[in-house]
Amino acid sequence: MQGKFASEKNVKFLLYDVFDAQSLCTHDHYSQHTKKMFDMVLAEAMKLAKNLYYPIFEEMDRKPPEYKNGSVLVHPQVRKIMRESGQGGWIGATFPQELGGDQLPWIVAGACSYMFIAANYSASVYPELTRGAANLIASYGSEALKKEYLPPMLAGQFQGTMALTEPEAGSSLADITTTAQPCTEGHYSISGQKVFISGGDHDGVDNVIHLMLARIEGAPLGVKGISLFVVPKLRCDDNENPVPNDVVVSQIYHKMGYRGCPITQLVMGEKGDCRGYLVGEPHKGLFYMFQMMNESRLGVGLGATGIASAAYYAALAYTQTRKQGRKPGQKDPASPMVPIIEHADVKRMLLYQRSVTEGALCLIMQCYAYADMERVSTGPDREKYHLLLELLTPVAKTFPSEYGILSVSQSLQCFGGYGYCEDFPVEQLYRDARIHPIHEGTTAIQGMDILGRKVMMNQGKAYTLFLEEVNKALDQAQTHLDLSPYGTKLAQALGTLDRVTGHLMDLAQQKNTEIFLADAVLYLDLFSLVALSWQWLCQALAAKKALTKNPSQKDRDFYEGKVLCFRYFVSYELPKINALAERLTAEDPISVECPASYFND
Amino acid sequence: MQGKFASEKNVKFLLYDVFDAQSLCTHDHYSQHTKKMFDMVLAEAMKLAKNLYYPIFEEMDRKPPEYKNGSVLVHPQVRKIMRESGQGGWIGATFPQELGGDQLPWIVAGACSYMFIAANYSASVYPELTRGAANLIASYGSEALKKEYLPPMLAGQFQGTMALTEPEAGSSLADITTTAQPCTEGHYSISGQKVFISGGDHDGVDNVIHLMLARIEGAPLGVKGISLFVVPKLRCDDNENPVPNDVVVSQIYHKMGYRGCPITQLVMGEKGDCRGYLVGEPHKGLFYMFQMMNESRLGVGLGATGIASAAYYAALAYTQTRKQGRKPGQKDPASPMVPIIEHADVKRMLLYQRSVTEGALCLIMQCYAYADMERVSTGPDREKYHLLLELLTPVAKTFPSEYGILSVSQSLQCFGGYGYCEDFPVEQLYRDARIHPIHEGTTAIQGMDILGRKVMMNQGKAYTLFLEEVNKALDQAQTHLDLSPYGTKLAQALGTLDRVTGHLMDLAQQKNTEIFLADAVLYLDLFSLVALSWQWLCQALAAKKALTKNPSQKDRDFYEGKVLCFRYFVSYELPKINALAERLTAEDPISVECPASYFND
Repeated sequence: MQGKFASEKNVKFLLYDVFDAQSLCTHDHYSQHTKKMFDMVLAEAMKLAKNLYYPIFEEMDRKPPEYKNGSVLVHPQVRKIMRESGQGGWIGATFPQELGGDQLPWIVAGACSYMFIAANYSASVYPELTRGAANLIASYGSEALKKEYLPPMLAGQFQGTMALTEPEAGSSLADITTTAQPCTEGHYSISGQKVFISGGDHDGVDNVIHLMLARIEGAPLGVKGISLFVVPKLRCDDNENPVPNDVVVSQIYHKMGYRGCPITQLVMGEKGDCRGYLVGEPHKGLFYMFQMMNESRLGVGLGATGIASAAYYAALAYTQTRKQGRKPGQKDPASPMVPIIEHADVKRMLLYQRSVTEGALCLIMQCYAYADMERVSTGPDREKYHLLLELLTPVAKTFPSEYGILSVSQSLQCFGGYGYCEDFPVEQLYRDARIHPIHEGTTAIQGMDILGRKVMMNQGKAYTLFLEEVNKALDQAQTHLDLSPYGTKLAQALGTLDRVTGHLMDLAQQKNTEIFLADAVLYLDLFSLVALSWQWLCQALAAKKALTKNPSQKDRDFYEGKVLCFRYFVSYELPKINALAERLTAEDPISVECPASYFND
Repeated sequence: MQGKFASEKNVKFLLYDVFDAQSLCTHDHYSQHTKKMFDMVLAEAMKLAKNLYYPIFEEMDRKPPEYKNGSVLVHPQVRKIMRESGQGGWIGATFPQELGGDQLPWIVAGACSYMFIAANYSASVYPELTRGAANLIASYGSEALKKEYLPPMLAGQFQGTMALTEPEAGSSLADITTTAQPCTEGHYSISGQKVFISGGDHDGVDNVIHLMLARIEGAPLGVKGISLFVVPKLRCDDNENPVPNDVVVSQIYHKMGYRGCPITQLVMGEKGDCRGYLVGEPHKGLFYMFQMMNESRLGVGLGATGIASAAYYAALAYTQTRKQGRKPGQKDPASPMVPIIEHADVKRMLLYQRSVTEGALCLIMQCYAYADMERVSTGPDREKYHLLLELLTPVAKTFPSEYGILSVSQSLQCFGGYGYCEDFPVEQLYRDARIHPIHEGTTAIQGMDILGRKVMMNQGKAYTLFLEEVNKALDQAQTHLDLSPYGTKLAQALGTLDRVTGHLMDLAQQKNTEIFLADAVLYLDLFSLVALSWQWLCQALAAKKALTKNPSQKDRDFYEGKVLCFRYFVSYELPKINALAERLTAEDPISVECPASYFND
């Protein structure tokens, strides 16, 4: 029996009922699409997820990549996945047609990625990374770079990577030391080391194209001296034959989870023969890379959501069939046992998982919707959607990552002892999930991003726009008697967020940056709980509307479930902001004032 | 380099400064001991932990037990660990001298167990389980059973187990179906299946003694028909030669973590030749077993604490040496990077880990202290300590288990990407830690235990005693200017707990058991946060006292760190009770009213 890992019904509910994705087709850029075509794309994605990704989910974990004689050997199906992702147009889905893409809205492409991820996260990373790298070349690369690299990358013949991290520069990109020396031929000679590079090399593709940060000789110190390069594994010699480009894998990491994808350590230029090709202008590398990072951060959020979804649906299926115990009132030991989903505490755990996974998916689709609207808008609207996307990116990366771990843990708990064993997929999902708060900017980095940058940028414009978006949904909630008490709670929470934000902005004015940012992670959590409640309200409103259309009993249950899940989130999760707010306004900087020596013993 | 996994200094601080363990020696039962002897025992335990347990921590994970031809093969050092645990007196440490024990206080024996666990949890389980099983025989077994089984168990020659769970009866013990048919020879013929039996069979001992629950033929249904048996793997034939007792291992489970200890599935009586020996009276098995379960529940709490400690000390060492980035004020990219422990967010994560691990250890030692005081007291005092121990057992099991997972996750986060790799011990600790909310009664079971049983038992006497204990510490806090504001917060929290408890007791009166117990897990969380804050106050008070004695700078740092950690816990963690209280008093039974069909889609 094949397990369920994602719900097409839920995806369509979000796409059409909540985000009205079909209306994108009225815009020129997306006018070649229709809702019917979106449905076909989704059905095709689900088919691929079921037939190509899911069957090797466990196998890729049990037989992780091997490092042999300098090469990285991955599961043989990776080649097929890359090729199908290329030939089926998945890698280039969102690319403009003139570059060979399908010009699909991000929100639809994202929904497809979600299915691939939920079926097999490790496998999904290969094409996703390639899409991000190709997109960066498409945005900022020269015509020559585009011509040489985009076709094989979009075809899935070449792997793309994102090569930032170095041994002494993880979260601190300012300190990268990989150097690029200009050569008379127009390229650069690259030399240095990179660590933790996902998909950094493997035998499932014909070449690997690194989008790499390096420092041009003589460049200023810090982030202002970082440039972006294309550094291929193989380059073409004068006769157009591929030759090694002096990029060597020195090891692969042995990881707790996410084991199907190799994470590599790379050494460039040991023989003095590693060529890099500058992307855009010198010293603007970090600015360019942020495009890929932002895309990847949403991707990480989606990755975490997909994993949590797979665990949730596995737990749901188990609790619907596993019988244990009786309802509290039932004292007769001869009475039959009930499926454990009948127990209130099990339902509570399932509501938690559902509220996290469907809420997180909704938020990420909201971000993709903003990206699409930015694309088709002009003037102030374009800026508005851009700012909202920027503001919500750290939330969409972190909430799914952090709460996703807790959600998978609750899924595992639903299985009891069986969840801890390899007989069920949840133990692997539990291991897989743990990577997300680390890669593409740790949770601490995301906290500093939202509080230290995003909330303040453009004189707080993004933040103000966010409040407006939430208030718009709150206005609608008032027309529903059963939603309005929960809307009131969200309105109060929004007030709390605003009060805390004001307090912290005052601290920032006082220029004590360390105290101001000390609990940035808590601020991000507070912001996230408000944002997620808003997304749940949007879902409840869409469900309410659908309920007026005389749905079948099955659909009615689904929509009523959405409304109840909104109530759950606002009642069980949202109140947690008060503890965060108390702490964030306490003016008692415990961590800052704690000397490191207090930890000695 | 050997990593630090536990702090002797902290253990001694808890033993002597917080719990005044040396005063136990004034009581007859413990009068053969002195503080100096306790110190020697602790030093010996630390030596064993370092030399015997720690070196095979990783190896036992990488090469888990194998099931071959019906036998379970474990790491060859297990035999040595069992023998040393026997010969060194560790298994029998708390046993009375007339049974061959050392009559050591539980609080001292517990401190030693903590070191073994922190060094290598899987390895520590073998002797700990044996101690629990032996203790049950010592308490309720016949003289014949004691004579036959206690000496080889206490010597580490025989493994003891706790055999409760069955395929259809995990959390629901009322439904066990293993049967015991009385035979004319005085023993019983056992037949049935058990699952998830830790240490259920292995080649590191000469025999395995199962303390097993079964139903005597014709016994009443439900928990009132359960009896307790000793069921050995090998029994003696008429010539005193060991022969198989028809207990067969049908499989071992392949687990995510805690891999060094085999968890087995057992089949009894397939050949109709499995003999069981009744312990105590028929149909009182569950009552007897609760002694071992309570002991094991504290043991699980200690296990979770030990694992979290090992992860915390690993993270601490890493953050003290790993350099990355600069302080927020420092804008000069040429300035040297700082050890990451200098970053406020890293200190926050370390404070979290320290507050969880040292707080949990303190709470468990508090429970052991109550056990010791119960032992040496008479009359109302004896009842008082007994009730406090009963009340706090679900807290001491669950808080370390649930928060331990989060704490290890924060340890892993301190390592960044390295934490996710096998190069450091935290990824294993992360996997090991996840078992604890499941075994010896899931968190849901513990929630129902505290709210549905413990708080109400003896007309709420245990609960009232608990309030008195906390208030005693609060009175002392008032004499310290810098503690009293935090004491006030704890006093308010105690008021919140009391208000919520009152509300729930009213619900219980109204006899709607399902609604009353629906959020029992949240109540347990609320109770735990208050209990832990109290334990942190006890530590802060002890540290304050020690600071008056002109300690060295190093000791001063340690004590000041304790006070700061108390402030941390009350400021960051305790406020979370308000969200729990809001939910617990909401009268909006979301999970109860949610039909299972709402989850369909």
